[in-house]
Amino acid sequence: MDKFWSEYPVVNNDLEEVIKIIKKNIKCKEKLVENAILELVNSGGKLLRPAFLIIAARFGEFKEDEIYPLAAVLEMLHMATLVHDDIVDDSKLRRGTETVQSKYGKDYAVYIGDFLFCRCFKILSEHSTLKNIKADSNVMSRICMGEIEQFSSKYNKQVSVKRYLKRISSKTAELFSLSFYSGAAASGCDERLARKLSNIGHNIGMAFQIIDDILDYTGSEEVVGKSIGTDIKQGLYTLPLIYVLEKKNSNLSSILDKESLEDKDIKEIADIVKSFGGIEKSRALAERYTNKAFNLINTLPEGENKNILLKTTEKLLVRFY
Amino acid sequence: MDKFWSEYPVVNNDLEEVIKIIKKNIKCKEKLVENAILELVNSGGKLLRPAFLIIAARFGEFKEDEIYPLAAVLEMLHMATLVHDDIVDDSKLRRGTETVQSKYGKDYAVYIGDFLFCRCFKILSEHSTLKNIKADSNVMSRICMGEIEQFSSKYNKQVSVKRYLKRISSKTAELFSLSFYSGAAASGCDERLARKLSNIGHNIGMAFQIIDDILDYTGSEEVVGKSIGTDIKQGLYTLPLIYVLEKKNSNLSSILDKESLEDKDIKEIADIVKSFGGIEKSRALAERYTNKAFNLINTLPEGENKNILLKTTEKLLVRFY
Repeated sequence: MDKFWSEYPVVNNDLEEVIKIIKKNIKCKEKLVENAILELVNSGGKLLRPAFLIIAARFGEFKEDEIYPLAAVLEMLHMATLVHDDIVDDSKLRRGTETVQSKYGKDYAVYIGDFLFCRCFKILSEHSTLKNIKADSNVMSRICMGEIEQFSSKYNKQVSVKRYLKRISSKTAELFSLSFYSGAAASGCDERLARKLSNIGHNIGMAFQIIDDILDYTGSEEVVGKSIGTDIKQGLYTLPLIYVLEKKNSNLSSILDKESLEDKDIKEIADIVKSFGGIEKSRALAERYTNKAFNLINTLPEGENKNILLKTTEKLLVRFY
Repeated sequence: MDKFWSEYPVVNNDLEEVIKIIKKNIKCKEKLVENAILELVNSGGKLLRPAFLIIAARFGEFKEDEIYPLAAVLEMLHMATLVHDDIVDDSKLRRGTETVQSKYGKDYAVYIGDFLFCRCFKILSEHSTLKNIKADSNVMSRICMGEIEQFSSKYNKQVSVKRYLKRISSKTAELFSLSFYSGAAASGCDERLARKLSNIGHNIGMAFQIIDDILDYTGSEEVVGKSIGTDIKQGLYTLPLIYVLEKKNSNLSSILDKESLEDKDIKEIADIVKSFGGIEKSRALAERYTNKAFNLINTLPEGENKNILLKTTEKLLVRFY
C-alpha cells in the first residue's frame, strides 16, 4: 500500500480492511480479469477517496460494517473510471506502471471496467442503502458527463476557464465531495456537518485536479508517474494553457494547429505557458481552493481527526508548488 | 417501435410506457450522448427483455409503478452491453443501422455505455429494491464474464460445446431468465412460479442465441441486419462451427488458420459447416431448448398471458428454421 497514510495508523488500518474487501469482491472465474484488477489495487494509488470517506465517518459514530464496504466501493468506482479513461486517452502509464488497456488491450479494458461497476453495485446492494446507491450512481453519471465534455472539447482553443472548472468539478471534485458526504452521512453526522465535509471534499478535489493539470507542464516522469505533455499531445487543453489561450497568444495558437506535436513543440508550448503566467495563475487558483478547504477544516470539531485532515490536505495540495 | 408485439395491444401499450421511461432517463446535458442513445432506442429492437418481464409480471398482481421502471432498466442494461460489445467486436452494423462505436467512435461508446449503466442503477435506487439491485448487478457481472470468456476464446479451435453453452448462458440466457424472474417476483408470484418463469427465460435465451449464431452462417444481411460471416471473420467460433471442429475436419481447420479470411473463404467455411451437419445439429439443439420452453409454458396458469407467451415464443424461435 502507498505510504501516504502510514503516519496515521488509524486511517492506515482502516484502509487495509478496505483493501481486503476490494480483493474479496474482485474474485472471479476469469483470472486475467482478477489479476488485472489486483495489479491496479497494488499499484500504489493513494486511496484518497476511501481514506477521506473514513476520516469523514470518524466525525460521527463509526460503524465498520457500513463504512468499509462504502469506502471499498468508492475506490472501485474510481478504478473503473481510470480503466475506461485510459482506453479513451490511449494512456500507456498510470502511477508509473503499464495501464490495463496497454497491457491487456482495449477490449479487455472495456469489460474489466464494466465488471468493476457491477461489483460496486453488488456490494452496495448487500451493505448499503438505496439512498447511497442513488448518490453513487448520480455522481458516476456526472463523472461520465465530465469525461465526455472533456473529450468533446479536445483541440478546442475556445474553452473558457468557467467550462474547464465545471468539467473538473464533474470529473474529479464530485467524487471527493461524495466520499466526504457519504462517510459523514453513514455515520450519523448531522446534515450541516455532512454538507460542510462535502464542501471540503469539493475544494480539495478542485485543487487536486488543477495541480494534476499543472504537473503536465512542470512535473517529471519520475515524480508524476506519466510522461510530460501527455495532455497537450492528446489535445486536452487544461487550465495553464487555457489562461494563455485567453490572451490570444498567436505563437501558441500556431504551434497547437500543427498536424502532430514533436517533443520540441511540447517544450515550446510549456515554455510559452510558463512565461505568460499560465502556471502562476493556475497555482493561484489551486491555492484559493486549497485555502477554502483549510478554512472549512478549521471550523470542524477539534480532535485527532481534524488534525489528520489538516496534515494530509497540506501534504496532498502543497506538494509540488 | 418494432412490430413484434403489435398483435398484443396489452404488451404493446406497456412497452410504450417503458420507452417513455427510458427516454426520460437518458436526458442529459451532452446532446450527442442523448441522441446516440435515442437512435438506439428507435432502431427497432424487439424489446424482448422488457416485454418478457411484463408478461411474467402479469402472472401476478401487476403494479405499473414498479414494473415499468424495472422493465426500462433491463432494456437499458441490454443497450449498455450492446454498445460496449460493439466496441470489442468492432461492429459496423446493428439492427441494420450504424453502431454507436462506428458512428461516434469507440471513445464515446465507452462513456455512453457507462452512462447507461449509471442511469440504470439510479432508476433502480428510486423505484426498486436492494434485492433487485443485487440480482441485476449479479447478472451484469456474469454477462461481463461471458463476454470476456468469448473474447479470450477467439481463434481457439479447441472450444467445447459445453464451454460454448456456458458462455451463451452467461452472456444471453441469464438476462432473459432475470427478466422473467424479476417481473414475476416484483408482482408477488410465489417463488415456485417465479422460478418456473425464470427457467422458461433461460431456455428461450439459449435457443435465441443458438439461432442467432446459426444465422451468421445461413442468414442474409437484409434479414439479419448485419453481414454474414462476421463472427467467423472475428475469430468467434460458435456452435455450428464447434460441432464440425469436434470432428477434426482438417480442411476446415486449415482455412481457419489463414492469416486473414476473404469472402470466398467465409463461403467455403459456411459450406463445410453446412455439409458436415453443423447447422443441422445446432438447429436440433436449439429445438431442444425451444421445446423445453414450450413444455414449461404449457404448465403455466391458463389465460391470455400464457397464450401471448406461447405465440411470441413460437414467433421468436421458430422464425428462421
